[in-house]
Parts: sequence; C-alpha cells; structure tokens
Amino acid sequence: MSNTGMSTTKPILVTMGDPCGIGPEIVVRAALQGGLDGCVVVGDQQVMARAASLVGLMQSLPVVQPEDLPHDLHRLPIGQVHADAGAAAASCVAHATWTALRGEAAAVVTAPLNKLSLAEAGLHWPGHTEMLQAMSSSHAGRDVPVRMMLANDEIRVVLVTVHMSLRQAIDAITLRNVLDTISIGHAALGEWGRGRARIAVAALNPHAGEGGLFGQEEIAIIAPAVKAARSLGIDVHGPFAPDTVFMRARRGEFDLVVAMTHDHGLIPVKYLGVERGVNVTLGLPFVRTSPDHGTAFDIAGQGVADASSLLAAIAMARRLSAQRQQAAKLVQPAT
Amino acid sequence: MSNTGMSTTKPILVTMGDPCGIGPEIVVRAALQGGLDGCVVVGDQQVMARAASLVGLMQSLPVVQPEDLPHDLHRLPIGQVHADAGAAAASCVAHATWTALRGEAAAVVTAPLNKLSLAEAGLHWPGHTEMLQAMSSSHAGRDVPVRMMLANDEIRVVLVTVHMSLRQAIDAITLRNVLDTISIGHAALGEWGRGRARIAVAALNPHAGEGGLFGQEEIAIIAPAVKAARSLGIDVHGPFAPDTVFMRARRGEFDLVVAMTHDHGLIPVKYLGVERGVNVTLGLPFVRTSPDHGTAFDIAGQGVADASSLLAAIAMARRLSAQRQQAAKLVQPAT
Repeated sequence: MSNTGMSTTKPILVTMGDPCGIGPEIVVRAALQGGLDGCVVVGDQQVMARAASLVGLMQSLPVVQPEDLPHDLHRLPIGQVHADAGAAAASCVAHATWTALRGEAAAVVTAPLNKLSLAEAGLHWPGHTEMLQAMSSSHAGRDVPVRMMLANDEIRVVLVTVHMSLRQAIDAITLRNVLDTISIGHAALGEWGRGRARIAVAALNPHAGEGGLFGQEEIAIIAPAVKAARSLGIDVHGPFAPDTVFMRARRGEFDLVVAMTHDHGLIPVKYLGVERGVNVTLGLPFVRTSPDHGTAFDIAGQGVADASSLLAAIAMARRLSAQRQQAAKLVQPAT
Repeated sequence: MSNTGMSTTKPILVTMGDPCGIGPEIVVRAALQGGLDGCVVVGDQQVMARAASLVGLMQSLPVVQPEDLPHDLHRLPIGQVHADAGAAAASCVAHATWTALRGEAAAVVTAPLNKLSLAEAGLHWPGHTEMLQAMSSSHAGRDVPVRMMLANDEIRVVLVTVHMSLRQAIDAITLRNVLDTISIGHAALGEWGRGRARIAVAALNPHAGEGGLFGQEEIAIIAPAVKAARSLGIDVHGPFAPDTVFMRARRGEFDLVVAMTHDHGLIPVKYLGVERGVNVTLGLPFVRTSPDHGTAFDIAGQGVADASSLLAAIAMARRLSAQRQQAAKLVQPAT
C-alpha cells in the first residue's frame, strides 16, 4: 500500500478549472473564506491574480503553474468557449494528476472545466472522470476502472453508467459493470475506514422490475451481481425499487447506494441543493473530489459565484485523505 | 362543465383497499385522528369493524358496502394474497368510481390494493390508475387519457410513462404522449384555479442529451412537444437536465414538473419521506387521490401502520375538490 507513508504535509492540489468560467474566482473566494489551508492551486498566475482582484483577495495564493500553459490566458474573454482555455484547464488537471500519481499530493480537487472548450482544443473528454481514468491507466500500465460517486451530508451514491444516452446506459448495465461498481464502492469505503459499510443497489426498472413484469434486468443482471458481491464478503443488498432506496439511505439504512443511471443517482443528491453535492472519483490511487456544478459561463467574471460546493469538495478531500492514511496505517504497520 | 353545481355536501369516498393489507386499519386510524370529516368509507362492514377493534376506534364509521363483495372477508388471513381480497378491493374502487362519475361524490380517495391479489381474482390491472382510466373511458364512450401526478408539500410531478420497463418507457416517449401529459397537467392546474401555472419538462437523458451527444429524444421529441404546448398558450419550459429540475421546482421556480419516467419523477417526491407523498390521477372528471405506498403485508394487522400519507391524500382531495368547484364557478355562471 503505497500511501502508508504519506505525510500530512503533502498539499491538496486545487486546479483552477477553465480560466473563462467561474473556477478561478470560486478558488479565490474559497481562500477568502479560509477554506484553502494546506492547498496549492494549480493554474495560471495571471488568471489567478485577475480573479483575486475581482473577488477582492489581498494576500497572494500559493500557485503552481504548469510549464505548458498557453500565454495570455488572462486576456481571454470571460464566459466564452476558447481552445486556449480548454487546453489550459486540461494541462492543470494533467499536472495535478501526475503529481498525485507520483505520491506527492494528499488529494486533487478540480474546479469546473468546459467540455466545448476542451473539444476546441482537440480534447474530446466528456469530463474530468474520463481524463483521470486514462491518466491513471497509463500510469499503472493497465486499465484502472473508476466510478463517479456523488455525496452530500446525507447520502453517497456511486454510478454504474454516466455520460451516455439512457438507451446506451441500459445496454451498458452488465453483470461485470454492476459488480465492478459495487466492488469499487466497497473498496473506497474500506480505504476511508468504513470496512463494514452497508451498500444498497438501486434497481433499473420501476418497482425493481415488479418480478419481471416491468423488465428483466433485475433478474438477469442486477440480482446476480449483488449475489456475486455478497459471495466476496461485501455487505450489499438489493436490487431495491429506485424510488424509495435513496430515502432509505438518507434515513441511515445504507452507507452507499449503487445507482444504474446518471439521473437516478444525481436527482436525490442534488434535490436539497446543488451547492451541497460533492463529486468523488472512486478507483483512483489518490483522493479526487470536485464541486458538483459546471463553469457557469452566464455568471462568470461577475464575482458572484458561490464557492460552497468547492469548499465542500476541499473539506471532503481533506477528510477522505486523512481517513485513507489512518485506515492504511491500521491495515499495515509503518515501514 | 358538469361539476359546476356540485354541492359541498357530497361526500369524499374513501375505499378500504385490500382487506388483507393495511388499508382498513389506516382508514380507521385516519378517523381516530379526525381526518375523515365529510368522508364515507366504501368497504366491507365486518372488515372495517375488525380494523376498528384492532386500532381501538369506538364510534362507528359511515360505511357503504358494495353489493357484490365476497362473503366472510373478515375471516381472510391478514398479510396474504387472496383472490377474494383482490375482488373485494376492485369492487370498492368500481363502486366509488361509478358514484363519482354520476356526480354523487366530491372526490375519491383509494387505500392501497395488492396487484397479486387482483391477479388472483382474474383482474390484471397494474394499479388503480389504469382501472380508473378504463372505467372513465367506458363511462365517457371515448378514450379518457389520464396521468399520474405525485405531490408533496414541495413539488408536483406528472409522469409521461408509468408501469413498464425503462426500455419500454423510452419507446413510449412520443410527441403525442409528452404533449398530452403537458396538456393534462396544465388543465388540472387550471381546474384547481392555477391558470398561470409554470410547467417544467424534465429531459430523458443525462444533461438533457448534451446537445444530442447523449441521446436524440430531447431534440427529436421533447423539445418539439414543449414548443407545440407553448403554441397552445401553455407556460411550459424545457427540456431541462433531470438532475437539477426537481431542485429548481422545490425552490419555487415551477408549479409542476413533467417527468419522462416513473423513477425520475418519484425519486424526488419520495426523497424526504414516503409518508408525505400523495398520488393524484389527472384527466378524470373527478378528483382522485391516494397515499403513495402499498398494502405493506409485512406489518398489516398489527395496528402499527402510519396513516400520514392517507391523511395527506384525504386533505388534498378535500382541497382540490373545493378549488375545482371554486374555479368552475369563476369560469361559468351558476345555472
């Protein structure tokens, strides 16, 4: 376990996100609100200075600037798609990820990037999660399966399928995919010191398929995956009707819910307020979180963007990396 | 408008539901809690007497007993599927529905029935909604399209598709079906005196299809249906990303959300507690509500079942029928 010797003095790396979105200003606002202790920003010095002046931050932030950033990013019009902005956002994520993969960071927290700007830069990632998976796989020399977890104060949800149409998502629900998701969720909870976590699996179809009347996926795929996971010693139950399992988890019955589709999982996490949700990537060899919103081009540059979700993401990264170190110590004596 | 002359002295009919489920006892408990003012129970006298003795209700309830009920229903074992129980539950619904269709009831509130008991009795309805639709269509001599609405104190959701697999639900999302759902929702809000209701349409796919990248249904079907509804003068917007539209409605931005699938709609309604949710059938010529839970065979007969959702359903039926009368008076002078 390579993290055993990780020292608490390693920084949490916070990427600035798309320089034309709200990323830089919410990072500065988080600093102003005292939430950046132990963090180092990965971004462009001048973009961060512009954001500091916008929000009214006096002291300077610790900023690491990747060498390959495009020039004059601070002159790009705010609130618009631009290839340089996409390239810069991706460079910051790559810099932070490689640093974490070398074991030199406690965690990575990413501010929002813009898919269209990425595409303009020739980078066709649907989002951070896929970039992080590709970099980790490249680093490991094998496919590293990752999953997207969303969490707030009340529930944790991990997704079997993410960024695809609902039709494609149904096709992507295989025994392997469901079992991997349960296993990755269980392993993550274990790394955070929750070895006896209770996991619920939400069904795909209404009423969990109503005994096969409303679809066969529960009988043919999901129930066998739950059974296989239980045979691996995981305390997992279901499939349960999607419309009540999140409410049950909220009331404390489960530590984690495995959801088959993006919106089955995200509707309940966001229902009480997007600003409370944090996105956590499971399966990576380091802790990575992000706020649960986008670049908000419509309000970027006005200094009004809310840093709550970023602050929640940083707080969760801090907590999870501490728990991870603690759990690793318990599992293995210090060398 | 046949309801114009409806008098407030007409009763709210409350069916007992499956005699072996929690229906009879939650009806009695609702009475004990003072929630049955102006209501008449449609059920079996002896089943209701057994429930009254279980819960400890002293005074007698007004009960109308349909003529075609099977005998000795009060001797059926509680908590089990039985053909006679299914037949009895269906008879009570039919009696209440025909009474309401004749204009002799202010509203119908149905306690839960059991699909398997119905099937044992040779009645293959997926639920109340489909029974009510068939009876109303038969009474009207034409197809009466109805929709299921779920509501709590915070949001109202109407469903485009209900009791079918998610694959079948996707196939059932047609321009006609979406437009009908918007229109039925709009008409119902109008009948309740909310003529300027703001309606949101939730998308089917993640991120509302991300411009076609995550599915074509938004571009090909849902957006055109919204456009068609707007051309009819309806204040409807969308399609919006499913994961945030319910949160937006909760914050007051919309009066009603149109959801494409059963669980997109029901997850947020039930998230804060099933006992707060009420099911309302839209499109019928009378007000019909029900609690948002089932027969709960596992706890039936113990006297512990919670009447909160039934009480909420009765309160909503009372409110909606009063609003309906009021709105009808405004539209049309009394004859």
